[in-house]
Amino acid sequence: MTRIPELPHLIYGADYNPEQWPAEVWREDITLMQEAGVNLVSLGIFSWALLERAPGEFDFAWLDEVMDLLHAGGIGVNLATATASPPPWLATLYPDSRPVTVDGVRLEIGGRQAYCPSHAGFRSHVEALVRVMAERYGTHPAVQVWHVNNEYGCHIDQCYCELCAQKFREWLRARYVTLDALNAAWGTAFWSQHYGAWEQIQPPRRAPTYANPTQQLDWRRFSSDNLLELYHLETAVLREVTPHIPVTTNFLGFLPGLDYFRWAAHEDVVSLDAYPDPLGASPHLEAGMQFDLMRSLRGGQRWILMEQATSAVNWRTVNAPKAPGLARLLNHVALAHGASGIMFFQWRASKAGAEKYHSALVQHPGPRRSRVWQEVVDFGAELRTLTPLLDARVSARVGVVFDWNSWWALELDSKPSRVSLMPLVQAWYAALRQLGQTVDFVPPSGDLGQYDLLVMPNSYLLAEGDAANVRAYVEGGGHLVTGFYSGIVDEHEHVGLGGYPAALRDVLGLWVEEWLPLAPGTVTPVQLGTASQPVEATTWAEVVHVDGAEVLGTFTDGAYGLVRGGPAVTAHASGAGRATYIATHLPEDALRDVLRGALTAAGVPHVTLPVHADVTLCTHPDGPLLHVLNAHGREELTVRVDGAADLAGAPLREELTLAPYHGVILRVPATFTVADLGVGQP
Amino acid sequence: MTRIPELPHLIYGADYNPEQWPAEVWREDITLMQEAGVNLVSLGIFSWALLERAPGEFDFAWLDEVMDLLHAGGIGVNLATATASPPPWLATLYPDSRPVTVDGVRLEIGGRQAYCPSHAGFRSHVEALVRVMAERYGTHPAVQVWHVNNEYGCHIDQCYCELCAQKFREWLRARYVTLDALNAAWGTAFWSQHYGAWEQIQPPRRAPTYANPTQQLDWRRFSSDNLLELYHLETAVLREVTPHIPVTTNFLGFLPGLDYFRWAAHEDVVSLDAYPDPLGASPHLEAGMQFDLMRSLRGGQRWILMEQATSAVNWRTVNAPKAPGLARLLNHVALAHGASGIMFFQWRASKAGAEKYHSALVQHPGPRRSRVWQEVVDFGAELRTLTPLLDARVSARVGVVFDWNSWWALELDSKPSRVSLMPLVQAWYAALRQLGQTVDFVPPSGDLGQYDLLVMPNSYLLAEGDAANVRAYVEGGGHLVTGFYSGIVDEHEHVGLGGYPAALRDVLGLWVEEWLPLAPGTVTPVQLGTASQPVEATTWAEVVHVDGAEVLGTFTDGAYGLVRGGPAVTAHASGAGRATYIATHLPEDALRDVLRGALTAAGVPHVTLPVHADVTLCTHPDGPLLHVLNAHGREELTVRVDGAADLAGAPLREELTLAPYHGVILRVPATFTVADLGVGQP
Amino acid sequence: MTRIPELPHLIYGADYNPEQWPAEVWREDITLMQEAGVNLVSLGIFSWALLERAPGEFDFAWLDEVMDLLHAGGIGVNLATATASPPPWLATLYPDSRPVTVDGVRLEIGGRQAYCPSHAGFRSHVEALVRVMAERYGTHPAVQVWHVNNEYGCHIDQCYCELCAQKFREWLRARYVTLDALNAAWGTAFWSQHYGAWEQIQPPRRAPTYANPTQQLDWRRFSSDNLLELYHLETAVLREVTPHIPVTTNFLGFLPGLDYFRWAAHEDVVSLDAYPDPLGASPHLEAGMQFDLMRSLRGGQRWILMEQATSAVNWRTVNAPKAPGLARLLNHVALAHGASGIMFFQWRASKAGAEKYHSALVQHPGPRRSRVWQEVVDFGAELRTLTPLLDARVSARVGVVFDWNSWWALELDSKPSRVSLMPLVQAWYAALRQLGQTVDFVPPSGDLGQYDLLVMPNSYLLAEGDAANVRAYVEGGGHLVTGFYSGIVDEHEHVGLGGYPAALRDVLGLWVEEWLPLAPGTVTPVQLGTASQPVEATTWAEVVHVDGAEVLGTFTDGAYGLVRGGPAVTAHASGAGRATYIATHLPEDALRDVLRGALTAAGVPHVTLPVHADVTLCTHPDGPLLHVLNAHGREELTVRVDGAADLAGAPLREELTLAPYHGVILRVPATFTVADLGVGQP
Repeated sequence: MTRIPELPHLIYGADYNPEQWPAEVWREDITLMQEAGVNLVSLGIFSWALLERAPGEFDFAWLDEVMDLLHAGGIGVNLATATASPPPWLATLYPDSRPVTVDGVRLEIGGRQAYCPSHAGFRSHVEALVRVMAERYGTHPAVQVWHVNNEYGCHIDQCYCELCAQKFREWLRARYVTLDALNAAWGTAFWSQHYGAWEQIQPPRRAPTYANPTQQLDWRRFSSDNLLELYHLETAVLREVTPHIPVTTNFLGFLPGLDYFRWAAHEDVVSLDAYPDPLGASPHLEAGMQFDLMRSLRGGQRWILMEQATSAVNWRTVNAPKAPGLARLLNHVALAHGASGIMFFQWRASKAGAEKYHSALVQHPGPRRSRVWQEVVDFGAELRTLTPLLDARVSARVGVVFDWNSWWALELDSKPSRVSLMPLVQAWYAALRQLGQTVDFVPPSGDLGQYDLLVMPNSYLLAEGDAANVRAYVEGGGHLVTGFYSGIVDEHEHVGLGGYPAALRDVLGLWVEEWLPLAPGTVTPVQLGTASQPVEATTWAEVVHVDGAEVLGTFTDGAYGLVRGGPAVTAHASGAGRATYIATHLPEDALRDVLRGALTAAGVPHVTLPVHADVTLCTHPDGPLLHVLNAHGREELTVRVDGAADLAGAPLREELTLAPYHGVILRVPATFTVADLGVGQP
Repeated sequence: MTRIPELPHLIYGADYNPEQWPAEVWREDITLMQEAGVNLVSLGIFSWALLERAPGEFDFAWLDEVMDLLHAGGIGVNLATATASPPPWLATLYPDSRPVTVDGVRLEIGGRQAYCPSHAGFRSHVEALVRVMAERYGTHPAVQVWHVNNEYGCHIDQCYCELCAQKFREWLRARYVTLDALNAAWGTAFWSQHYGAWEQIQPPRRAPTYANPTQQLDWRRFSSDNLLELYHLETAVLREVTPHIPVTTNFLGFLPGLDYFRWAAHEDVVSLDAYPDPLGASPHLEAGMQFDLMRSLRGGQRWILMEQATSAVNWRTVNAPKAPGLARLLNHVALAHGASGIMFFQWRASKAGAEKYHSALVQHPGPRRSRVWQEVVDFGAELRTLTPLLDARVSARVGVVFDWNSWWALELDSKPSRVSLMPLVQAWYAALRQLGQTVDFVPPSGDLGQYDLLVMPNSYLLAEGDAANVRAYVEGGGHLVTGFYSGIVDEHEHVGLGGYPAALRDVLGLWVEEWLPLAPGTVTPVQLGTASQPVEATTWAEVVHVDGAEVLGTFTDGAYGLVRGGPAVTAHASGAGRATYIATHLPEDALRDVLRGALTAAGVPHVTLPVHADVTLCTHPDGPLLHVLNAHGREELTVRVDGAADLAGAPLREELTLAPYHGVILRVPATFTVADLGVGQP
Repeated sequence: MTRIPELPHLIYGADYNPEQWPAEVWREDITLMQEAGVNLVSLGIFSWALLERAPGEFDFAWLDEVMDLLHAGGIGVNLATATASPPPWLATLYPDSRPVTVDGVRLEIGGRQAYCPSHAGFRSHVEALVRVMAERYGTHPAVQVWHVNNEYGCHIDQCYCELCAQKFREWLRARYVTLDALNAAWGTAFWSQHYGAWEQIQPPRRAPTYANPTQQLDWRRFSSDNLLELYHLETAVLREVTPHIPVTTNFLGFLPGLDYFRWAAHEDVVSLDAYPDPLGASPHLEAGMQFDLMRSLRGGQRWILMEQATSAVNWRTVNAPKAPGLARLLNHVALAHGASGIMFFQWRASKAGAEKYHSALVQHPGPRRSRVWQEVVDFGAELRTLTPLLDARVSARVGVVFDWNSWWALELDSKPSRVSLMPLVQAWYAALRQLGQTVDFVPPSGDLGQYDLLVMPNSYLLAEGDAANVRAYVEGGGHLVTGFYSGIVDEHEHVGLGGYPAALRDVLGLWVEEWLPLAPGTVTPVQLGTASQPVEATTWAEVVHVDGAEVLGTFTDGAYGLVRGGPAVTAHASGAGRATYIATHLPEDALRDVLRGALTAAGVPHVTLPVHADVTLCTHPDGPLLHVLNAHGREELTVRVDGAADLAGAPLREELTLAPYHGVILRVPATFTVADLGVGQP
């Protein structure tokens, strides 16, 4: 695997916004960066207005100076194309370059990202700026990587203006070719929606009631693609002018608006901005899940943690600091899950503007005057000892199916019940992590055969080809576990008839007659195998008819009197594989039990860890590496590993005690599996 | 009473949307309909876009075929005028034919009902379509009734566009004739609102603060009338072209936007779409109240239950199924309350579109493959045994005053407290049903003399003539019970002076000095007669001064120290009648006690039933019928009736045990009253 | 101090809206006013539409008659300029004279105050009307004072239309002179916001995300100033035409939109509309705080309580009446805090319109027919006995810093936590009142030296000069107590670097490294001095480094493990003074303890009162006066004062027992301080 960018060590750095400070500060910055071990900074992200103060009038003097200073200081640059937010003059020149909400409000400038992605004037100014940037800095020795735009879709992932409506129609024309095909796909025979001409079609703006669901779904697809087109606009110039410099754009984890599987294919390296809430129940899981997604987007390639907070952010209702040690812990989680570098937003806390209360490396009280700075310096030094990680590869035997199309479709209106995807995925992910599993996220169209176990918490929408891919995976010997309301609709969101889930009922050996959404606060008891008592399932139940499947769990009551004694969890041998179905939302322990059974059946080694133990096994040219982290902030964690050594190869005692928020990276024997691991609280 | 439509049996059927399916499915549909006992389907409701694919270009081939198939299959048609939702081309042709919200957002097409009722272009297309439909199908033998438009006002009951503003002004001009009259009625001397010209008047669009209340009230009246004008536009054509075919439009129960008393006069038969929430505390009461309203709208004439779900709907947050037996129970409630037919939305569950998860007769798993289908078939068979009900007439001795004008006025802003009408009506209705009473809903302008007891939970607004009507009812010997904050304002929402409630204080024998709204969660104790302890009243208290009335209940404390020892419940002999007043919101049992006392005084037989016993007495040419239903889903109900027989005349045992959700229809002796009924839980 | 207006007694009266009633009622009104002791009415506030029925067509006949009637009846007039709400014809003439929301919705007429303050046409009509009014009535003997407009900014304190945008730019140009200065002040180097031309600048309309904070702050300043300009427009005419008549405009207490310190300088007398919620925990404190602000706005000058309810209002969700005695109590609170008169909204309850359910002196049941009327009459008589109060002067030894700029800045978005100012000020105010202190509110730019103790619950923003003023106060011997997150930013909302709070760290003898906002529901224990156990602080904690300060209280745990053992409360001798700092939000008792310590250190006499005892000491030419009020509605209060006499000079017993909601005004010895007071519950 190529290292991108090509640095001798793991990346360490931050967003750097020198334009907010007088030049004398710049020199201090370089010295401090060196002290902290910084080797890469992201530069120029929001500099457009200062680089091009009037249309076509460029001023690069200050940036030239900063670039040279950084290079002289031995610090590489992740150079922004500077297009993240257009200058005020753009909105004056083109009032219709501002985006429009679903209610028809044209949004104002004064914040950031106030552009319509379809506006030709905006796009030509973007293209011109990128070309000038590329031509000017493409040969500068500091430049390591291009940072294209910034957090696409962070605030505006859908613009409902007339220009976007026009582009939507073009996108639909390309997708469907004929109006008949569109009418069929959208099911416009319903509610008198038949379109007689392309120009009759509109975005799903605020309407008297539910807009056509397929229209809404296509709108989400289009909106993601329309921003991707902006990205292509920039990268086309960069590929032409500076083909030697890799490109990235920073992602936002499980961002609802953008189908990152479609995006990542066009990057040289994936990068992530990650802001788990320190007040959340399990920040390491919230972050780790995003990290696993990033690694999965480009087939296991190491990725860059490009932004995070050294301590608190400024945009939640209550912005908690990262308690001492938490920042380091999360950095280790990132490295364990495949990061090739650790960066922050931002180098120096601003005096003014909307993000001045976002923590930074250099805090307001000044350099070398905060515990945060000390943590930053300490971690910079530690990072230099971890260079071997650059050659480690995280290897997962479990794949979790994730599909933006299905996410969008599931959360459309007019469903049996409001089911949100992410809580389901989080629950299943947490269960797998507790079972010691490293997991990839994989689209249903992906290479499924690489996994011993495929887990699909919910794939409400399964396009025909994707469903065939999943079925073929099982038939070919794969082990699948899927949850309720999966495989219900095709890519047009048409329900498969003949018994749910039409796309999977053969492989699952059952059909579902009826869904039974449960009211919040109500439960339905489920008896699992020979357990001593039923568990309390929530959210959803189903009337399941088995057709070959073995019943692993049974509804014993509840759910409107419609399921008593009916199957709740089933397994079915199908071809050379096996498919497990969970027709409800199980509580944590029960879900873990079902998944443990599936791992056993699939022959995947497993262990049951405390919830705050974060374990990841990697391959490495010098032998496997095991990351063991204690994500608990107050309690110690004890680990037993036979034959382990430290990263430098020095043998370790069998039993290690990890302080709160601390962890170790162990070299383990080649035959090691997580089943060999002893982990417990002392 | 004429049967409309003229079918030999009770109606059984559904909305039928064949345009969503290929022609081969149609034939299967006919067979299945016959199997289920269907004799009427609603057809073409959302077919406009497929009947008129471009302006003026009609294509009726598919509809012709379906009509002929249905007729050949012996199935009648409730034929829609197909105007429920205009095709997309209308909005392209006339962008301003779309409706506008109170905030000025012009709503988009893509859902349904996206039209402004005032738009001339829209209206001329509606009229043309209705004419073509009437001319083409007016002589088709399948047609039994016209289904005009669909659920008027369901999503858009008020459009704030400039065209509607213009029509509002015309409506006001017709109402007030002179600006002086309008200024006086609206009280524009307040807040500098005097109008000097008609064109200065606007709809109550989003304003800096409360719009003029009378303006708001007139706007609600206008908005109801403006949609009614659309209905007249269609029926004028139908009356002209097909005078022999009855017309209906499906109502939505207690819909806030439309004054159904004004509407129903222009129908040949009333029809209802009813969707009680299976998760609600008492779906049979929620539904029953709507059923009683429907029957009352046209003087006791039987009405059609035109839409309901076979099981779950798709538009609530959590859409519960109807538990086994609940659908049948609610059908029986409808029949008991005067339905002449039972129909559903929709025949076959859609594959696509916003209502695909609404339950149907033919569910997604396929025909004859669901418990829902079996229930449908079973009930179809049962229904054929109930044909005598077509000649039964529900007879009520109690009238509940209901007035959209008062509802609108009560729920305007800037009141002493936010009081919602429906919870009050529901509480009083439930109490009366528990006392074994069949009730009509009657407008205060109605024929009150037909009732032995008139109940007015709240009539905040009483127009002068209506107040006189109520007073005359009492003076003439009627018994009235009314609740707090009734009779306060006239039709212009002007407060009557001299002591509240000016319109009723003579008849009530009291005057109220001050209202005392109670904060949520606070109570005020009320001692009723010689009860052992006070009950806890909520919501509201009053400083009442009696002036002839007898005190039945007394506030003992609370309410800001202003009512201790003051009257809370009073009764007053007035002329030949008697008027009871309740100056607070009593808890369930206490309210029932007061109403029981009034029934006794009025000489109306009563009984106290369990809350889940639903009892309705009807007259019939062959002697009275008694519907007894057990609305409990888990417990049995025991009923004792002397001398009862079944519908066919076979004598029954005195004591009957009704299974959960089951009921009986009994022939009872001519002298039977509910006081003869023994009902209890075994 | 001059009495304004020059009346022989304390003012007593109400808003009078005779245009809502026929002329025969006017005569009854005069009789009733005389009966109630009314000597001043506010007239014509919402009369524009009836005075000028079409542009330029005036009709004063009815007003002339009312003026003469009032004068003949011995009743003075607080004459409105009648501009509070323009007539409908204005919006017809100038559709763009209506205001626009942050979302771009142009608000509709039909309520009140639907004008854009920047609209030239509106302004010219205002100016013309004021001139006509002044010329016509300037010599009328009834006129005592001009009532300019009404409740500026009540509904619309910000208009986002294009005209206001243009005026905003002009205001900014005047403030910053150069674009460079604006760019520096706004920190536009952040997020690519650099402005290259004035016309690029917009109001902070709805944007994709947070608008520039300094832009938002300047927008609030501009919006206040823009309404103030409207006030100037009117007063310029009045000063020219009727220089002999004093002017006022009625304020709304702590209204977020208007910086009343800037406004009051341009009035002759301050007036207030006060509507404390009778359901609130302490209406007397809610009201008293507003009263103290009013008195402070013009250096202790007595002010007019111009509007309040006799009982209930009509605009809350639940509008509770004032329990018997509460209205009188609040009137006494007003007099104690410096009111020179007691007025109400409104004289006679309306029959129609949005305020008909607002209580009045003459209620709907009619004159002399309500307990409210009796209370009104009784208080009118009592008031005549209190004339000496006109020469009393409330004297405060404690100043509470209050600054609209800081309020606006604190409650902008993107902060460490959402902290609201008013709850903090209310908590500190209540503590000071319980300690027997009379307090002024003072801007940080004010004459601080007049106070022995200066209290600053929160001044997040401290302009440079203001910070210097505060520091000089302490250096010069003053005693300061300030709370967390004070002195953080300068007038441009730029953070002071080098350790928080940069503006105060020298005077406080400490610096803060990090803020630790606490999640709702979480607490952090604080050990104060030698207290037996820690108290539970909430909302906020800080990492404090002392640099000279003495530690009075210590965090013992919590707050993310970052403060254990760190300072929570400190005091620092600075120059001749002393500064106390509270780095968290203390519970009520603990806050009072810290403030008690500061009062002791400052040599200010104090006492600890029950929460419902309201005590105010005033100076008077005849010797000091002490107001003692019992704000409890159900319990008595016992007071011991040596050597007290009643207002007429008659000696009183040492121990007085005050009935619920009752109070006394005592003449006390010249040496009396609150420390001499014995107050307790019997």
